[in-house]
Amino acid sequence: MGKGILGSSIVTQIGFIVRDVDASKKIFADFLGLEEPKSFWTGDIEQTQSVYRGKPCPAKAKLAFLKVGDQVDIELIQPDGQPSVWQEFLDEKGEGIQHIAFQIKDTKGKLHALGEIGMPTLQTGEYTGGRYSYVDGLKDLKVVIELLEND
Amino acid sequence: MGKGILGSSIVTQIGFIVRDVDASKKIFADFLGLEEPKSFWTGDIEQTQSVYRGKPCPAKAKLAFLKVGDQVDIELIQPDGQPSVWQEFLDEKGEGIQHIAFQIKDTKGKLHALGEIGMPTLQTGEYTGGRYSYVDGLKDLKVVIELLEND
Repeated sequence: MGKGILGSSIVTQIGFIVRDVDASKKIFADFLGLEEPKSFWTGDIEQTQSVYRGKPCPAKAKLAFLKVGDQVDIELIQPDGQPSVWQEFLDEKGEGIQHIAFQIKDTKGKLHALGEIGMPTLQTGEYTGGRYSYVDGLKDLKVVIELLEND
Repeated sequence: MGKGILGSSIVTQIGFIVRDVDASKKIFADFLGLEEPKSFWTGDIEQTQSVYRGKPCPAKAKLAFLKVGDQVDIELIQPDGQPSVWQEFLDEKGEGIQHIAFQIKDTKGKLHALGEIGMPTLQTGEYTGGRYSYVDGLKDLKVVIELLEND
């Protein structure tokens, strides 16, 4: 296991897979006493250039974010039924926490280094202003890790 | 669902159930680039007055904490094999994220209010300087919620 391999120890997201993001965002907002956030679908594959387990990934997710600390959001993620890291979690485990995320630099270098220590890349994609990667941390860290790199 | 029922929207813990807290705390510390934390067992039932699903709970857990934000820790929890909310999770789901926690006031009032909205109490106990409660948030929030009240 690499020492401080991400260059960050700050968790910036707690990512939940849910079946109905619009229902869940209302429940979470009420529970937390927060304003109900907007939800939105991720982009087309032409924009996201998403890859899931080595193959082009046209899957989308409907997302909503709730601020649960100065540095950390709850992310609610509704898969669209097509193969993806999100749908895989829903099919295998049902609704619940799927990942924790960290802000990083040098996605390519980090993914290579993580692969070397037994944490292979599961899915990658671009979003406006940055890119995400999910890596398989289940063996050592008991959870999927998301890397977020903003330009 | 009550609106802002906890009086807090700040997540202060991400709680992982692990089989071997001493092995996991080294892996987490290395991964995060943090100093390896100490681990310790929770107290005897005479101290904790712990109750699990309505019955006195002599179960203990071995804990370690890693700081992953100004306001939030990762808590690693190793159950001891006796019946508890921790062992139940390990037996049913294996290792992984079991709870998120919030700091609250008035444990008794909060547990009553949560029960009224369909989130029953799973386990309670005292620790030096405060008390914890786990409530079943799985239906609405897809995760167990821990309330922490420090005196």
